[in-house]
Amino acid sequence: MAVNLSEPGPLKPVAGVRLGCARAGIRYRDRDDLVLMEFAEGSTAAGVFTRNAFCAAPVHVARAHLIEGTPRLALINSGNANAGTGDPGMADALESCAIAARLAGVSASSVMPYSTGVIGERLNMAAFEPGIRAAMDALDEKGWDSAARAIMTTDTVPKAVSRTLELPQGTVTITGMAKGAGMIRPDMATMLAFVATDAGVAADILPPVLKDVADASFNTISVDGDTSTNDALLLVASGASGVTLSEGSSEFGQWKEALLEVCQLLAQAIVRDGEGATKFIEVRVRGGRDHHECRDVAYTVAHSPLVKTAFFASDANWGRILAAVGRAGVADMDTGLIDIHLDDVRIVKAGGADPDYREERGAAVMARSEITVDIDLGRGNAEAVVWTTDLSHDYVTINAEYRT
Amino acid sequence: MAVNLSEPGPLKPVAGVRLGCARAGIRYRDRDDLVLMEFAEGSTAAGVFTRNAFCAAPVHVARAHLIEGTPRLALINSGNANAGTGDPGMADALESCAIAARLAGVSASSVMPYSTGVIGERLNMAAFEPGIRAAMDALDEKGWDSAARAIMTTDTVPKAVSRTLELPQGTVTITGMAKGAGMIRPDMATMLAFVATDAGVAADILPPVLKDVADASFNTISVDGDTSTNDALLLVASGASGVTLSEGSSEFGQWKEALLEVCQLLAQAIVRDGEGATKFIEVRVRGGRDHHECRDVAYTVAHSPLVKTAFFASDANWGRILAAVGRAGVADMDTGLIDIHLDDVRIVKAGGADPDYREERGAAVMARSEITVDIDLGRGNAEAVVWTTDLSHDYVTINAEYRT
Repeated sequence: MAVNLSEPGPLKPVAGVRLGCARAGIRYRDRDDLVLMEFAEGSTAAGVFTRNAFCAAPVHVARAHLIEGTPRLALINSGNANAGTGDPGMADALESCAIAARLAGVSASSVMPYSTGVIGERLNMAAFEPGIRAAMDALDEKGWDSAARAIMTTDTVPKAVSRTLELPQGTVTITGMAKGAGMIRPDMATMLAFVATDAGVAADILPPVLKDVADASFNTISVDGDTSTNDALLLVASGASGVTLSEGSSEFGQWKEALLEVCQLLAQAIVRDGEGATKFIEVRVRGGRDHHECRDVAYTVAHSPLVKTAFFASDANWGRILAAVGRAGVADMDTGLIDIHLDDVRIVKAGGADPDYREERGAAVMARSEITVDIDLGRGNAEAVVWTTDLSHDYVTINAEYRT
Repeated sequence: MAVNLSEPGPLKPVAGVRLGCARAGIRYRDRDDLVLMEFAEGSTAAGVFTRNAFCAAPVHVARAHLIEGTPRLALINSGNANAGTGDPGMADALESCAIAARLAGVSASSVMPYSTGVIGERLNMAAFEPGIRAAMDALDEKGWDSAARAIMTTDTVPKAVSRTLELPQGTVTITGMAKGAGMIRPDMATMLAFVATDAGVAADILPPVLKDVADASFNTISVDGDTSTNDALLLVASGASGVTLSEGSSEFGQWKEALLEVCQLLAQAIVRDGEGATKFIEVRVRGGRDHHECRDVAYTVAHSPLVKTAFFASDANWGRILAAVGRAGVADMDTGLIDIHLDDVRIVKAGGADPDYREERGAAVMARSEITVDIDLGRGNAEAVVWTTDLSHDYVTINAEYRT
């Protein structure tokens, strides 16, 4: 049961971007499991991929294709991650791109493949040609809603969001969709996200923009600390709105801000739908010497099984948070400078229990389904935020189920 | 329920070391909660302490006292960790040493204080003087068995072991005891271990020996990745056997080996008694370029909630292990060189599913209560071992219980 996450409202089409789904039967029956995204000629694109050394075949291929040129198609299948499949898996990923390229009349290197699902099984290649044909017939600018559903694996709610900007030059839209319910659900793995805009943005600007945005959104979440073999994020700017944005302009700033909002909402949606999640936790670390040490502290707290089980138990257990801060490896940490708040309640003051703290105030915060842990290191001006969940019995149940 | 861990057999006294227990009523009723260890004059000692920046008051004091001279007494209380208690906690730790010193007629700096239990509460100082008096009256070389029981908090089984060595110069004994059932149980925190030998070992040799031994024993275990604020290990060599060991001699080598065995058995006992543990897992990483990268891989696998839940489910889920290896941050990892075995069953060959692997063979291994995960990185000769447990429903239950 996702934490405060409802079905996305109607999604806004992005001019120059069409989506089509198909019941290809790659693994699932009776549901769409293949999505084709088509990007207008002249689009620009940027991508971010998993840093897991065991990255899946489609990640290798998509990364290489993105270097070779601008994507015209994204080909996404759910149910099978094509990971841990070695050279035959690589050949399958390339072959799936070749099929889509042939049917669409584009070059194979302009097709970006994405797979999510079970690890270690070969793709059912026979399903691809008919599946791609059917998805191609269904291509439509209004295809976002069904696509967001078709890329789901263990997700309980589809994740997608739109923003429009009224700029002096015209209206610009950003729509994105994502899937994922654990950093990796090893049988039904992976976080995937696809974001498109009809603004025109120069090709050399997109990659640094996407890196900034990803660092403040998808790279800021953690359900269980496990990075998938298939994680990927694609951003495409079609330019089809006729509005071209130059770096440094105020319109560019507004657009980048809206893009960040879309990515943050998608990233948070993944956490809200995290396996077994009963609470949505923001860990905010302030007062660090640099962003890096703030992130280390935030992730150490966010990954601590003891902190996570305390949130599950609605126990304002400041000792567990304090102990996690202390082992985060920050050099020369002066624990006497540290304050910790749960929402507006200070639980630790100057490195010890706040003498004014009352158990019932902590309990009142802990009863909420969304809680901010605010940790002030008191030694600088840097900060970092990580979004995570609690650790519940359902997490163990979900992940202890034998592969089906 | 501990994994293959039974009550220790009768413990061998260590000449020159006496132990006494008392029901001081520091927190618990109806059980011993205070232990005094007395070391003969002329003993040598070495200590290892938690690296957690939020280390508890007794850790600060014990570390300082060990620098000032050789300990004559160790004063251990269970039920209250005296952590997160600020300057008043520090004063309490110093005061407890002063009381013991006065009663025993030794200097306060020769008393090593150790506390384990709830974080963030002041010690019940009134209990110390009568408690220390009672423990002092009970001092006995045969006191190890009751002491091992008195230092327990959430432990379900006392942890202690003895080894004797018949050397040409005479018989030498090593006896050790430990407590701990999670790296930190924040309410009943901490791993503590006390090891004594009646061999004579020069004061400057003990610290490097203890570091070597700790790195291959207590620093090699993990239940949940959480380092306590109070973790501490003390080694004392009384010399009372009359056997003096010189570094480099073959007898010294035998003694160090026996010491390592004692520490490894104690460390493994902590894992076996790990919160909610149903399996004892050895993660062995071989074929690395250096020990450091092997440890990184071993700990990443040992800490992965997905790997741990798979073990709980007895699921030979090689995809989860492979994904954890891949995200361990090893530079230039060639995944095509990696083999993974569960006991004698190869599940991953050259970075992919072993084609000869059969599910029923993996299931047979997974049915065992002790399992070795052997990961060969295929790029060097270094190796590392980590001992850990699975992640079970009971772990969540134990840690989600509200503080009592």
